[in-house]
Formats: sequence, structure tokens, C-alpha cells
Amino acid sequence: MGRRLVYMDHSATTPLREEVIKAMEPFFRERYGNPSSLHSWGRETRQAVESARRKVGLALGSEPEEIYFTGGGTESNNIVLQGIARRRGKGHIITSSIEHHAVLDVCRDLATGGFQVTYLPVDRYGMVDPREVEEAITPGTVLISIMMANNEVGTIQPIKEIGNLARLKNILFHTDAVQAVGKLPVKVNDLGVDFLSLSAHKFNGPKGVGALYVRKGVSLAPLCNGGGQERKLRPGTENVPGIVGLAEALELAMGELSPRTAHLVALQKRMEEGLLKIGGATVNGHPQLRLPGHINVSFNYVEGESLLLGLDLQGVAASSGSACTSGSIDPSHVLLAMGLEPEVARGSLRLTMGWENTAEDVDYVLGVLSPLVKRLRKISAHYPQSRSWEGLKGV
Amino acid sequence: MGRRLVYMDHSATTPLREEVIKAMEPFFRERYGNPSSLHSWGRETRQAVESARRKVGLALGSEPEEIYFTGGGTESNNIVLQGIARRRGKGHIITSSIEHHAVLDVCRDLATGGFQVTYLPVDRYGMVDPREVEEAITPGTVLISIMMANNEVGTIQPIKEIGNLARLKNILFHTDAVQAVGKLPVKVNDLGVDFLSLSAHKFNGPKGVGALYVRKGVSLAPLCNGGGQERKLRPGTENVPGIVGLAEALELAMGELSPRTAHLVALQKRMEEGLLKIGGATVNGHPQLRLPGHINVSFNYVEGESLLLGLDLQGVAASSGSACTSGSIDPSHVLLAMGLEPEVARGSLRLTMGWENTAEDVDYVLGVLSPLVKRLRKISAHYPQSRSWEGLKGV
Repeated sequence: MGRRLVYMDHSATTPLREEVIKAMEPFFRERYGNPSSLHSWGRETRQAVESARRKVGLALGSEPEEIYFTGGGTESNNIVLQGIARRRGKGHIITSSIEHHAVLDVCRDLATGGFQVTYLPVDRYGMVDPREVEEAITPGTVLISIMMANNEVGTIQPIKEIGNLARLKNILFHTDAVQAVGKLPVKVNDLGVDFLSLSAHKFNGPKGVGALYVRKGVSLAPLCNGGGQERKLRPGTENVPGIVGLAEALELAMGELSPRTAHLVALQKRMEEGLLKIGGATVNGHPQLRLPGHINVSFNYVEGESLLLGLDLQGVAASSGSACTSGSIDPSHVLLAMGLEPEVARGSLRLTMGWENTAEDVDYVLGVLSPLVKRLRKISAHYPQSRSWEGLKGV
Repeated sequence: MGRRLVYMDHSATTPLREEVIKAMEPFFRERYGNPSSLHSWGRETRQAVESARRKVGLALGSEPEEIYFTGGGTESNNIVLQGIARRRGKGHIITSSIEHHAVLDVCRDLATGGFQVTYLPVDRYGMVDPREVEEAITPGTVLISIMMANNEVGTIQPIKEIGNLARLKNILFHTDAVQAVGKLPVKVNDLGVDFLSLSAHKFNGPKGVGALYVRKGVSLAPLCNGGGQERKLRPGTENVPGIVGLAEALELAMGELSPRTAHLVALQKRMEEGLLKIGGATVNGHPQLRLPGHINVSFNYVEGESLLLGLDLQGVAASSGSACTSGSIDPSHVLLAMGLEPEVARGSLRLTMGWENTAEDVDYVLGVLSPLVKRLRKISAHYPQSRSWEGLKGV
């Protein structure tokens, strides 16, 4: 097979769909008004923003006025956590030990100023146990924040169960759904969440724009002060093209959820089977309750970083852990929380597939990966080399 | 003259330049990597972001590493003010009574939690007096925040004088330069500022992206917590196309500053002369120290909102006060601070011209405005109608 370019890092970011670019383009050109302006240029973009809000509301099963546009997933998470913290002043927050840094780091910051934080453990599949959520609740608990799907291992959390619990106990519940939206059905009332964060560039939309669902009647102190935009929760001139692109990408993704999922699950299966044939490979995360197209694999005696660089030389984009912690020498906090040894945690490779990937892409990646793993093991000081040579005989 | 479309609301937002769209396009299509990713897709966009940072640093006369990309001007202002507040915990802030709400509202919020704020008055031209800044300084002063040019009346503030003073007194100095950047020379060392906020969509760049200059060695507590992007001051996946567009727009604007200014000053003069011929008109703001192309005019016995709507019907985009407060029934806080009577403040119209406006645009606006003012005065309960009829005889 000849060299090809294969992008398999869709959990880091995704290519924009041509339809999304087309939807945004008029707002880069003739439709440039400020939605706060009263003249026709402004009214036109105001309508575009409100139409986008209706589309997002429809996709999430919420009222349009429960949707707020933000600068991205990190900002959405911060608006919720800091917004609750500013309203309450003190209290107890329940989260998990495998959240994205955009939740974990906010919690750590809040813990230095009047808040107690419980970081729930996960099982070996990276799953939070709703019973542990229940047990962690105290009379002072003001918020539960559990991600919908993990960005490193793709494990899908029991959000609905936690949502039922939160409602029963009358505690506010936030889910960071940045990795889930566009890949799983996400209806806020089914999930029982009060807040939900999402980011456009994770589902073939533009970078620099996100959204936040806030259940009607729930009050958050704004993170930024300024103009009256987004009902004062997120002031500043609206990113009109970005908002239009987000809504278009979400509508497309949700409309095609079923064929997309089937496509990604098939690729995932093909990839997983191929990976396990390489030998000494362990797929991390939950065997079934995992994001479609998401694979996190560890090869014994091999560094994840080395695999990543080796793949890159062959035109394959992958990740070792999440993009936001790449470059860091620490082993993944998610894999450690799942009980993996630091050596194994350091050796993990993330392959996240998207709608444009094909079976040929999977075969190409496997074709590159198999000799690469063997070569790396050959130069490893720890790998029992005799066994390695034996293993190679059959190749 | 036939009907035409004339956009004269450039202080609210500006059309994107075609060169800017062209510069952004590759990053909406093939160059979609996450700059934090280690593979070639990521390295490519990392280089684009860092190249943009160098361009912005060059335009502002700063080091590249003193530039941070943000979600817009409002966010830049919040990062500075809240960032100082979080570091210090308490203290005294000096600002002016004519700042944008993205500064005023943050100050009001900080005043509820441990900070004293002095809102300096302005003279009848909307100008802050550096001597008053000096007099307001107390041993507890932690920050001075004065805008570079006012968004409603366009008055250019004596930033350099205040900067000298701030350095002498060893007090941190921030300027909200959102309206100035792209229209005035803005070199951070000449101005003597420690922080400077700017927003791309005000100088023919995209919406949803801004930047912040932070002098090396000055520490700000981040507003959002999360990933390590923008050296942890503004975490979250970078808006790569937006950042590239911002840098391109800034480079173009600064490169053409001299011909742009000449063009805008000529249009401004033509417009001002025409407005004064209408009668009962007062141009607000400083007669000379004003943003090129910026006009704020009050017509006696006429509501600004009525003028705005009348102009809109004829295809002209203008504003009554700033876009962010349009729709509000309060008279402008800027015009009130300048000592205008509330009736006059309510009657103001803002016409802000851009590089694509022409002398024909100016003549068209004057041709629409003159009969419109007369018609509105005719139906005004307060206007002395006999004089009105006399005045109309000569038309």
C-alpha cells in the first residue's frame, strides 16, 4: 500500500464539513453586522444567531433560550463551575478523577477558596459508579460535574443514572459533553442535566465557539462582565459565523447520527481486531460503553510518544493521551485513575476516527503500526528479546 | 441620487477584508489540526498561531510572548481587571466614567468585593485629565484602566501622559484600545502601558477573537482554568482561523494607516460640514483629538433612535450610542459624563466611517439626513414650529 495521509485524532479536533464552511461564508462577507445593532445589517445577524440558537435547542431537546453561545468547551465549563461558585461562595462539589483539565483545574482552584471537592474514583474501564456519587453527597453539596464521555479512553458515563439521582436529591448537575455531542444522542431532559457544555470543533464545526445549556430558572453569576449579549452570561460581540457554523455542524451530526455511528463502530471493530493481532496490546476503556470510533491502546514495552512520532512519519495523526496534555511528561491522569501502572499509562496511543475515515485508512494504520511496534520493542531495554525474535519468525 | 446601501457603523463592527478571509480559508479546510497535537497537522497550526503572534507583536512593538489571543475585547478587558483583582484580593482601581461596559461593569462588580474604584470625570469633549489621574492615586492603587479612544464620541485619551505617570508611580496601567487599534499608531512602549486590549472585528478582522498585550514579568491570575494554551492565561483550543485572521487584518491596517487616516479624515470633514449646514446640530467629542472617521452628532428636538430608524429605511447603517447599549432606553453614560443634558444625550447619532466608504456615501447620508431631521422636528411637540416653517421656506 502506498503512503497516505490518515487523520485519526478526531478527539483533538475535526475537519470542518464543507456544508459548515458554506453556511458560515455569507457572515464573513456581506452579512457582517453586529447583532446588537438596530439597523438592517444588525437585524440580519441577530436573526442568524437566534436561528442558530433554535437549531441547537432542537438538537439538545431544550428551549432555545436555555442555550448560550460561548468561546468553546473550556469556557462553557468554567462558566458553570465558577458561576455556581460565585453564586454560592462556599460548598461541596462532586466530580470525577478523570475529568478534562477544564473541569479538574477549575475544581482545584475552587478548592483553594471555600470549596470542598470530592474526586470520585473510576473502575478499571474508566467508569464512575452512580452509587459512589450518591455516597459522596453531603448536605453542603452544591454541584455534581461528571463528563458524558471521557476524552482519553472514550468511556461513556452513566449520566442518566446520575441525573436521576441529582434530581432526587435536588442538586445541580453539570456534564461536560464536549466529546459526546455529535457522537451520542444528547437530550438534556433524558439525561436529567442542568448544565451541558459542548464545543463546535469536536463535531466538524469551527474552532473558537462552543455552547452551554443552562436549565431555565437556574442562575449563574457571569464569568465576564460587559455588554448584555447572551443575556449577560457571556457578554461581548457574538461570533456570528462561528455560531452559525456550530449550529449547522450540530444539525448535520445529529441528523446523521445513526449512519455515522454504524460507520464508526465498523471501523473501530476492524481496528481493534487488527491491533490485538499485533500482540502485547491492551485496549483501554470500556469494552462496549465507549465512543464510536474511539480507541485507546497500550502496547507493552513501547512508549506512546514513540508510536505517535513513528506514525506521524508515515502520515498518520494520532495522539498519546489528550491533546491538551501532550508534550507533558506525566502519565495520563485518566489511565492512572483506572489503575494502570505508570509504565503502561505512558505507553498508550489514542486513535480516534471520524466520518471521513475508511476501512483502507484503518488497514494502512495497522500496516504501519505492526512493524513499528516490533521495531520499538526490539530496541527496548526491557523487552525480553529472545521472545521478540521468536515472535518475529511468524511474520 | 438613487437609493444605496451605506454602512457607517464601523465602531460597532467592520466588514472583513477579502485578504483576511483568504488568509483564514486554509485553516477552515485542509489545515485543521489542533495546535496542541504533536503530529504534523498540529505542528502546522502551531506554526500559524506563533507566526500570528509575531505579527501582532510587531504591529504593537512588543515581544511575541507578550501577546495572548483571547475570545474578544470584552474577554481581554475582563482577563486584565479580574486577573489583577484575583492576584491582589483588594485595593484601589482608577478608571474613567466613559469606559466601555466591559471595563465599567467589571469595576462595579469588583467594587462589591474588596475593591475601591474611582471613576474619573471627563471634560465636555470627553477627555480625561492626567492631573486628575495623578490626584486620584492612593497608596492602595493597584491599577489604572483608561480607554485609548472612546467608542461613542471617538475622543482620543492622553494615554502617553497617563502611562508616564503610571510608570513614575509604579502602578500597573491598562488601556482598552478596542476602538483605537487599526486607526491610530499603537506602540505599547511609546504609550507606557502594561496591558492593552484589542478586538479583531473592529479593524476588518473576524468576530470572536481578540488579543491582549501583557508586559513581560507582570502576572495575571487566569479567568478560566483548563489546558496550558496561551501559557495558561487563556486555556482552550486556539481559534486558529480567527487568530490568523486577526494578525492579517492588523498587519494590513497598520501598513495602510497613513492613507487610511487621510481618507477617513477627508470623509469626516465633508460629513461634519454637511451636518452643521442642517442647523441645530452639535458634534460631540473632541474637535481634533478624535478617531478618524468618527462622528457623534446631536440634533436639537430630535431623538437619536428616530434618526437611526429613518436612516435605516433609506439603507444607511448608523448607531445611537454604542451598539452594546442600543435598545437600552437610558441616555448614554458617556454623553451624560460630558455634561450634556439627558434630552440632548438621547438625541445623538453616531456615524463611524470605514476604509470602504466614499465621498458619495457621505453625500448620500447627508441627502437623507437633512429632510429627515426637518420632518422629525416638524412632528416634535417641543420644536418651535413657526421657526421650523420659516426654516423650511428656504429648502
